[in-house]
Amino acid sequence: MTAPIRYGMIGGGRDAFIGGVHRMAARLDNSMTLVAGALSSTPEKAIASGLDLGLDANRSYGTWQDMLAGEAKRPELDRMQCVVIVTPNNVHHAPALAALEAGFHVVCDKPMTCTNDEAQELVDATHRTGRVFAVTYNYTGYPMVLQARDMVRSGAIGAIRKVFVEYLQGWLATPLEDDGQKQAHWRTDPTRAGAGGAMGDIGSHAENIMSFVTGLDVEQCCSDATAIVAGRSIDDDTAVLLRFAGGARGVLSASQVCVGHRNGLTLRVYGETGSLSWRQECPGQLHVCTLEGHDTTLHRGDSGLCEAAVNATRLPGGHPEAFIEAFANIYRGAAAAMHAGRDDGAGFGYQTVADGARGVRFINAVIGASGRGWTTLET
Amino acid sequence: MTAPIRYGMIGGGRDAFIGGVHRMAARLDNSMTLVAGALSSTPEKAIASGLDLGLDANRSYGTWQDMLAGEAKRPELDRMQCVVIVTPNNVHHAPALAALEAGFHVVCDKPMTCTNDEAQELVDATHRTGRVFAVTYNYTGYPMVLQARDMVRSGAIGAIRKVFVEYLQGWLATPLEDDGQKQAHWRTDPTRAGAGGAMGDIGSHAENIMSFVTGLDVEQCCSDATAIVAGRSIDDDTAVLLRFAGGARGVLSASQVCVGHRNGLTLRVYGETGSLSWRQECPGQLHVCTLEGHDTTLHRGDSGLCEAAVNATRLPGGHPEAFIEAFANIYRGAAAAMHAGRDDGAGFGYQTVADGARGVRFINAVIGASGRGWTTLET
Amino acid sequence: MTAPIRYGMIGGGRDAFIGGVHRMAARLDNSMTLVAGALSSTPEKAIASGLDLGLDANRSYGTWQDMLAGEAKRPELDRMQCVVIVTPNNVHHAPALAALEAGFHVVCDKPMTCTNDEAQELVDATHRTGRVFAVTYNYTGYPMVLQARDMVRSGAIGAIRKVFVEYLQGWLATPLEDDGQKQAHWRTDPTRAGAGGAMGDIGSHAENIMSFVTGLDVEQCCSDATAIVAGRSIDDDTAVLLRFAGGARGVLSASQVCVGHRNGLTLRVYGETGSLSWRQECPGQLHVCTLEGHDTTLHRGDSGLCEAAVNATRLPGGHPEAFIEAFANIYRGAAAAMHAGRDDGAGFGYQTVADGARGVRFINAVIGASGRGWTTLET
Amino acid sequence: MTAPIRYGMIGGGRDAFIGGVHRMAARLDNSMTLVAGALSSTPEKAIASGLDLGLDANRSYGTWQDMLAGEAKRPELDRMQCVVIVTPNNVHHAPALAALEAGFHVVCDKPMTCTNDEAQELVDATHRTGRVFAVTYNYTGYPMVLQARDMVRSGAIGAIRKVFVEYLQGWLATPLEDDGQKQAHWRTDPTRAGAGGAMGDIGSHAENIMSFVTGLDVEQCCSDATAIVAGRSIDDDTAVLLRFAGGARGVLSASQVCVGHRNGLTLRVYGETGSLSWRQECPGQLHVCTLEGHDTTLHRGDSGLCEAAVNATRLPGGHPEAFIEAFANIYRGAAAAMHAGRDDGAGFGYQTVADGARGVRFINAVIGASGRGWTTLET
Repeated sequence: MTAPIRYGMIGGGRDAFIGGVHRMAARLDNSMTLVAGALSSTPEKAIASGLDLGLDANRSYGTWQDMLAGEAKRPELDRMQCVVIVTPNNVHHAPALAALEAGFHVVCDKPMTCTNDEAQELVDATHRTGRVFAVTYNYTGYPMVLQARDMVRSGAIGAIRKVFVEYLQGWLATPLEDDGQKQAHWRTDPTRAGAGGAMGDIGSHAENIMSFVTGLDVEQCCSDATAIVAGRSIDDDTAVLLRFAGGARGVLSASQVCVGHRNGLTLRVYGETGSLSWRQECPGQLHVCTLEGHDTTLHRGDSGLCEAAVNATRLPGGHPEAFIEAFANIYRGAAAAMHAGRDDGAGFGYQTVADGARGVRFINAVIGASGRGWTTLET
Repeated sequence: MTAPIRYGMIGGGRDAFIGGVHRMAARLDNSMTLVAGALSSTPEKAIASGLDLGLDANRSYGTWQDMLAGEAKRPELDRMQCVVIVTPNNVHHAPALAALEAGFHVVCDKPMTCTNDEAQELVDATHRTGRVFAVTYNYTGYPMVLQARDMVRSGAIGAIRKVFVEYLQGWLATPLEDDGQKQAHWRTDPTRAGAGGAMGDIGSHAENIMSFVTGLDVEQCCSDATAIVAGRSIDDDTAVLLRFAGGARGVLSASQVCVGHRNGLTLRVYGETGSLSWRQECPGQLHVCTLEGHDTTLHRGDSGLCEAAVNATRLPGGHPEAFIEAFANIYRGAAAAMHAGRDDGAGFGYQTVADGARGVRFINAVIGASGRGWTTLET
Repeated sequence: MTAPIRYGMIGGGRDAFIGGVHRMAARLDNSMTLVAGALSSTPEKAIASGLDLGLDANRSYGTWQDMLAGEAKRPELDRMQCVVIVTPNNVHHAPALAALEAGFHVVCDKPMTCTNDEAQELVDATHRTGRVFAVTYNYTGYPMVLQARDMVRSGAIGAIRKVFVEYLQGWLATPLEDDGQKQAHWRTDPTRAGAGGAMGDIGSHAENIMSFVTGLDVEQCCSDATAIVAGRSIDDDTAVLLRFAGGARGVLSASQVCVGHRNGLTLRVYGETGSLSWRQECPGQLHVCTLEGHDTTLHRGDSGLCEAAVNATRLPGGHPEAFIEAFANIYRGAAAAMHAGRDDGAGFGYQTVADGARGVRFINAVIGASGRGWTTLET
Repeated sequence: MTAPIRYGMIGGGRDAFIGGVHRMAARLDNSMTLVAGALSSTPEKAIASGLDLGLDANRSYGTWQDMLAGEAKRPELDRMQCVVIVTPNNVHHAPALAALEAGFHVVCDKPMTCTNDEAQELVDATHRTGRVFAVTYNYTGYPMVLQARDMVRSGAIGAIRKVFVEYLQGWLATPLEDDGQKQAHWRTDPTRAGAGGAMGDIGSHAENIMSFVTGLDVEQCCSDATAIVAGRSIDDDTAVLLRFAGGARGVLSASQVCVGHRNGLTLRVYGETGSLSWRQECPGQLHVCTLEGHDTTLHRGDSGLCEAAVNATRLPGGHPEAFIEAFANIYRGAAAAMHAGRDDGAGFGYQTVADGARGVRFINAVIGASGRGWTTLET
C-alpha cells in the first residue's frame, strides 16, 4: 500500500461546505491525508478550524502564506506535499501560483481563476515547475461518465451531431445572499465569484463534463446570461447556443433559479449512429440508444465496461456509489500523478490546469457574449 | 346525445399516417362522423381511398374542389358541415380558405400555413365568415397539459421566470427522404413544408404548448436552425433562445436527428414559487415542485384537478389515457363549438385560427433569425 | 372495410363505469356498433339509459330477457349479433347462457361467473352452440403484453423459474361501500361479486395476464385472503404463493387497500436466461434483462416486435397508446372471430370461455385455501 | 474531534469482498481505525493480507485467537477496542463470544449466527459483559430509511395494514459455486451459511429493514424456500406470507436467481391513511402517498426531515449519497456507543445483538416452515 499524499488545505473551515467533502474524498481511499491547514481568511477562525479537525497546533496556520512558509521549513518526509484550495474563486490564483513556485502540488476547486490571464499564468507556472495541478471537476470522476467518454471517443455513437448539457438548481430562487447565507453571498458577488454567477459555478461543470465526454471544441457561442432575481449583479440563469468545430451543435443551460431542482446536471450526446444520456442525480446509469432502435441502460458494475470505469468502481452493481466516491476518484488520480511525478490528467483521471484554463475562457466568453449574438471563442 | 358533426376529409388517404388518427379521434366520442372525402392529391387514389373507408361512392371525391362543390349541393341536413384538412402544409391555405368561403367549418392540421400572409388571410376569413376554425395542436388536449395551464394561469407557481420546451425525435437521423419515405419526403421539402423542417413540424407543437400553458408572448429570439444530415435543404435541428414580454427567459429545442427519441415533447416551466414539468410520452403525470421543497406528482384522474382536466378525462386514474384520447378532446371541443356556432377556442379546448397564425409567425421568425443573433418578433 | 358487428349491451347504464369503456373500445375501430340495450336491472332506468345513448326507442329494452326475445324477432341483417355483458358478476351466467342458446355471440366481463359449475356450463354451451365467447380480460390487449407472451413462448428468456404478478389499488382503503358508492357496494357483497373480493375483481386479471404470458399451469397454491377494512365480508387484500407444473414458483398479490396505488398491475417473469417486466400504468414499455447483464427497454412501435404486437398497434412509437386501445384490441379480435365464425381466442387475440373458466376456478381455489396451507388445484 | 475507535478485523483478506467495504465505511468519517487483523482462515494468507493493508507486522495475526490474545497484552491506550467480524456465517459465533469475554466490543456481519441457540448465547454474553454489539444491517443506515421509520412510528401513515419487502438478485442464476467463485461457494453451502441461502443472506436484510421501519412483530409465516438451480442444497429463492401481531399482513421475497436484478431491495408499507415506498438502488428518495391522493417524493437533504435522517446526511440534496455512506453511518453509531459505553442501538443508529438474534430466529422459522403451511414464530 502506497502512503497517502500529505496535504494542507486552504479554505474549508467552520461554516464552509465543500472543504469537508474534499476531506472525505481524500480519506475514502487513503489517497491523501490532511497534515496542515489555513482554513479561513480570518486567522483566528483559520486556526480554530484546524484544531476542530485535529490538526497539530503548529500546523494550523492563520494564513496560507504562513502555511507555505511553515511547511517549507519542515523535513521533507514530514512536510505537506500538496495544497488543496477550496476558497472563493478570487482566492484561487494567488495561493495556487505561490504553492507551485514553492514546489507544492496543487489541487484547486473550479473555476480555476476569475480571469483568462490568471488562468494562463497558472498553466505556465505548472509547466515551468513540473508540479501536478488538478482542478476538481469532480463529476468527471463518476464511472459512467468515464464510460460515456470512452464510448464517444471509440466511436460507439458515430460522429457527434448534437449535445445538450444542463445544470439546474433552485437554491438561488430567492435573494438568499441578503440573509447572510455565506455560500450565496460570495457566489453572487462578482468581485469574489468572477464574471459568471450560475455560469461560473455550475455552468463551469457543465462545460467541463461536455468537453470531457465529447472532446469537441466550441467555436462559437451565442448566450443569454440573466440576473432573474431582482437586485442581483451577476447571472443566475444562463443559456448558450453552441457551434462546435466540425459542425455539431449544442445547447448549454445553467440556472440557479429553477425551483425544484437540487443538483440537476444532465448530459445528452447524439451521434450519427447512437446517443448517450446521463444524469448526475442517478449517476450509476448510462442510457444508450442506437439508430436501430435499441434502448439500453448500462449500470456501473456491469461486465464489459471500459477500463477507466472499472477502475473507478469500488462496489458491485446494485450497491450504489455516488458523489463522494466520484470525488474520491479525482483525489486518487491526483495522488497517483503526484506519486508518479507526472502531471498527466487524462491518464490519471483528473482535470488538468489546461482543462481549468479552457473552462475559465469559456465562462468569460459566454458572459461577454450575452445578448450580443454569435461570438467566436479564443482558443 | 348530440348528433355527430358530419365532416369531409382532405388528404389522409392510402399511405398517409395522420389522417387515420384524425378519424379515430373524431370517432372515439362520436364527435364527428366522416361522410365525404377528397383523400389524396391524385384523383384515382383519392376515390379509391374513400371506398376503402366505406364512404358512399358519390361522396368520395377526386379533388377537394369537387368535394366542396358536391357537398354544397346536398340537402342541408345531409351535407358535410366541416372539412378536416390533413394534407402537406402547402395545401392547407387554399382549401381552408375555400371551405370557409363556402360556409364550412374547418379543422386544419398544423402548421396552419407556410407564410404569414396566408395565415392572416385565414384569420380574416374566419372572422368574416363566422365559421369555426380549429388547428389540431393535439397536445393541448391532454388533461395534464390543461391542468398545467390552469395552475400557471391561476398563479400556482408565481410569475414565470424560465421555460424549457423541447421536442426531439430521431426518425430523420438518416436521409430517409432519399428512400422514398412519403412523410420524410414532403417534410424535408421546403416547397411543401414551408420554411421550417423540424421547426415547422414539431417546433410548431413546442411553441404552441409553451404558449398555451404559459400565456407568455415571445418578444425576441435568437436561433440556430441547421440541416445536420448532408444534402438536406431544410432544418432538421433547431435551438432557440427566447425572451418573453415581462422578462422571463426560455429555450426551445426541436430536432429530428436525435437518435433514441421517439416523440420526446417535454415542457418545463419555472416560476417564482414553484415549477411544473410534463412529458408527452408519459402524459398522465404532471410534476410539481415548490419553493419549500415539495416534489409532487399529479395524476390524471386525481381529485382536485381543474375542471378542464376533469372534462378531458374518460377513465379513472391508473387506467392510462394517451394520444388518441387527447386528440379526441380537440375534436370534441371543435364539435361543441360548431354546435354552439361560436369560434371560441379557449372555452371549448381547441386552438383557434389566431393560435395557428401566431405559430406560423413564430416558425418564420425563428428560421429567419437563424445565425443572425437577436431578432424581435412581429406581433 | 368490414361492417361492424351489431351488439346489444346488458348492464352499463347510467352511473355504471365500465359499460362506457366497452362502448368506446367497440367504437374506436368500428369493430362493433351498439344497436340494442338492456342497460340496467331497473327496467325504467334501463330504457332511459338506452335513450341517453341514442338507441332506437324500440331497441332500448327493460330486461335482458326482453332484449334476447325482441332481437330474435328482427330480420337477420338488422338484429343484433352479439351480447355484451357488463353487469355485476352474479348476473353473467344466466344472460350468457341464454344468449348462447338463442344463437348470439357473447362478450362477457370477468370474472366470467361466480361458481366453477356455472363456468363449466358456459364452456359446454359455447362448444355446443358454436358461438364466439370472449371474456374481456382487457390487459391481454396491450401490444407489449403480446410481445412478452411471444418472447416467453419462443424461449427468449429460457425456462421460467419465478413469476411475480401484483395488482394493487387503494380505492377500497376506506369502507366506501357504506357511503353508497355503487361500484364498492356490489364488489364487496359476496352475493353479487362471488367468493372473491379483491381476488375476484383484480386478482382475476392478475391470474389471467400471468397465464396468458407464461402458459404455466398452477398446481398448488397457498394463500392469505383477508378483509382488512373492518366489517367487510369479503377479501380486500390477498396474497398467494404459487407452485407451477414444472417447478417454477410464483407470488400473486391483489389488494384494494394499498393507499397510493391507482391501478398497479405489474408482471415480472424470470427465466433461466433472461427476464421480462411490464407495468400497466406505463404500458408501452417492456423491460428485458439477460443473463449476460443487458438491460433493455422495448417500446411499442419498435421495429422487430412480434406480429401480434405489431397488429395491436395503431400509432408509431412515442405516440402513446393506452387502456382504451388495448380494450379495443379485444373487441377487434372478437369481432374478427365472429365474422370468421370460429371461436379461436389465441388466433384472434381475446380470452375464451376456457380462459374464463380457468380464472373462476383459480379465484375459488385461492379463497378456499386461505389460511389452510398448500392446496392442489383442480384442472 | 473524538479519536477513532481502534479495531481489529476478522476475515476480509485477499479475495474477500465485504471486508473492504467495512474498512471504507469505518474510515469515511474517521469513526474507527484499523490497527490489527486476522484477515483469513489461512494463517499465511491472513498475515499477508494484513501487510497488504499496511498493518504493523506484529499486529497482522494468523488467527483470530492470536489476535485476541495479542491485543489483550498491549497497553490499553494502544490496543484494539473492537473486533469487526466479516467471516462466513459459521465463523461469527465463536470469535464474537470470545471477543466479548475478552472485553472487546463487537461489530458483526449478518446473519449474526447460524442457530437460534448461538444467537441467544451472544445476547446473553453482551448483556453480561456490557460491551457494545453491533450487527451490520447496513441498509438501516440510509437516511431515507430512517425517515421512513420515523414517519411510520410517528403515525404519518396510520396503523399499518400491509407490508411488501423484496430483495432480488440474479447473481446465483447459474451454479457459480461450481466455478470456484468464493462468495457463491460458501453462501450455497449450508455448513457455512446456515439453514438459509438466499433467505439467510438477503432475506435477512429484508426482515431487518421491515422490522426496523415498521416495528411490527411477525406472528405467523407460511413459506416456500426453493433451490431453483439444480444441485443446490440450499434455497436460492424464497417467498413468505406474513401475519403480524395486530392483524397486518405481509409478503417477503428473497431470490438470487432473478436475472436482471443487481441488488433489488425494496420496501413498501401501506397504512390506514398513507403509504411509503423505498428502493435501495435509488436510496435518496422516499415515496409517500396519502389517502387523499397526494403522491410525493421526499429527498435526502430536504428540509423538514426527521433528526435521525438529518444526522445521517453529509451532503446537500441532489449530491447523491449511497451505500458506503449508509454503511459508514452504522460505524459512526457503533463508535459513538463505544465511546459512550452504552449498547443502545436505537439511540445510536445501529442494530443490536437483540435485532441480530431476532433475524436468526426468523430465517430459521422461514426455512423450517417451507412447504408446511402456517407456522407460529417463537418470540
